[in-house]
Amino acid sequence: MAQQLLGKEVTASLNTRILEQVDILARKKIRPCLEIIRIGDQESDISYEKGAMKRCSLLQIECRTFHLGAEVSQEELLSVIDIANRDEQVHGVLLLRPLPKYMDRHLVENALDPAKDVDCMTDASLLGVFTGKQTGFPPCTPQACMEILDHYGIDCTGKRAVVIGRSLVVGKPAAMMLLGRNATVTICHTKTENLEERAREADILLVCAGRAKMIDEKYLHQGQVVLDVGINVNEEGKLCGDLDMEAAEKAGALYTPVPGGVGSVTTSVLAAHVVEAAMRQTNTD
Amino acid sequence: MAQQLLGKEVTASLNTRILEQVDILARKKIRPCLEIIRIGDQESDISYEKGAMKRCSLLQIECRTFHLGAEVSQEELLSVIDIANRDEQVHGVLLLRPLPKYMDRHLVENALDPAKDVDCMTDASLLGVFTGKQTGFPPCTPQACMEILDHYGIDCTGKRAVVIGRSLVVGKPAAMMLLGRNATVTICHTKTENLEERAREADILLVCAGRAKMIDEKYLHQGQVVLDVGINVNEEGKLCGDLDMEAAEKAGALYTPVPGGVGSVTTSVLAAHVVEAAMRQTNTD
Repeated sequence: MAQQLLGKEVTASLNTRILEQVDILARKKIRPCLEIIRIGDQESDISYEKGAMKRCSLLQIECRTFHLGAEVSQEELLSVIDIANRDEQVHGVLLLRPLPKYMDRHLVENALDPAKDVDCMTDASLLGVFTGKQTGFPPCTPQACMEILDHYGIDCTGKRAVVIGRSLVVGKPAAMMLLGRNATVTICHTKTENLEERAREADILLVCAGRAKMIDEKYLHQGQVVLDVGINVNEEGKLCGDLDMEAAEKAGALYTPVPGGVGSVTTSVLAAHVVEAAMRQTNTD
Repeated sequence: MAQQLLGKEVTASLNTRILEQVDILARKKIRPCLEIIRIGDQESDISYEKGAMKRCSLLQIECRTFHLGAEVSQEELLSVIDIANRDEQVHGVLLLRPLPKYMDRHLVENALDPAKDVDCMTDASLLGVFTGKQTGFPPCTPQACMEILDHYGIDCTGKRAVVIGRSLVVGKPAAMMLLGRNATVTICHTKTENLEERAREADILLVCAGRAKMIDEKYLHQGQVVLDVGINVNEEGKLCGDLDMEAAEKAGALYTPVPGGVGSVTTSVLAAHVVEAAMRQTNTD
């Protein structure tokens, strides 16, 4: 029997945990605070910002937004980041990306204090993911996948996890996080031979390939857990993932739908990181 | 038919390449120089130092050694590193480890300029391995494995590579390097189920498990490439790898022997990194 792993159920239990922590902080008169820095007025940025603001508001997290013109200078952006770094009221900073092309991406990204880097923008956070050390924070999207596994009680130890995609934003970090949970991890990509066979071997399949509905029955088996990170638009202009959900139903997989799956957990993970950052910065247990 | 992948053959061709680069540098009156920093008089350190010095001498690379007492203070070590960082004559620095327990390992290791970090001691080098960017240098041992693959013309693209071991020194970097060569990479470890089966699935098997002769016929198949990073001592006090070489012969694998395999290529890789560091620091092509 197929089963959907629903983001809203994961979010509900995550939010309960977050509110407990917010409560602990409130007793110390600390209110966790996220600052979102947005450059220009791209629709996708505005939409993500709105989602994050709404989530923060529901969870009693302060959310400040800082808007900069589309042609802001690198110097000005760096000074905004510097102020946020030094502001003790701000616990987490989210800089919406990509950055304007005329900027030195590496320099700007690493200007942020890793302690406030709630979505793995700095090298220090990325290194933390690779080494398993707690410097900065892991990226929200693969972390959302881990939260889904946790919520549904899916133990990774000894299991075969297959990741399709090797980006630094999702694929590689996801592989390291699954490895940290003691899965035997295989990383597949565009050069992989017999990809269908590799995918079928997975107990846990995490797909971040970015190709609409590419994962059909040939990649799936009964009882397989499928985490779909893909966000694509199909021919009819509708949102769809990398997974063909009809095929997942037929195969009897346990899968995250799109919409309503991994993506819907991401802003809760972001909020969880802000609260965790506030706890670390104020030495609160 | 089984075949041994011999370190000395790889070293010979690597050395030819290194001498060509040394020659290019010599025309600019630059002599590549490695500084080895050794704390105390541990036998394994002295032996590694001797090997590296001999290799450097054969390759016309200057090798300076800096010996510190077993109870040197962290401050003194940091000042030695600082001097090496600022010395334009020194292109690469090798600090023999482990460090004394009373030192702040992370602080000391990251005091070295990544540009001179010829054996992946700093976070910057490690991050370079993870991201595929050229910051610092990859660790010499997994790099030696890549040199062996290159020398014997073994193309990784699309092949299944299985790494047994997930340490930050060998396993994880080796997995990233094989991924960079477009292999489909699986990382196995002590919690992996059906390890023998996973290993048999590999076209290229890289073993860094640290258990003498654990890889027997059940892990192997005809024509499989086996890179053995293990350095163990058997019951008779003799050096042996993680691979049972008799089993590899019977199975018809292409394998690196111990001794005479991966380990014997490591100091040449170190020398290659010193020369590469000298070329980068002097803008020589």
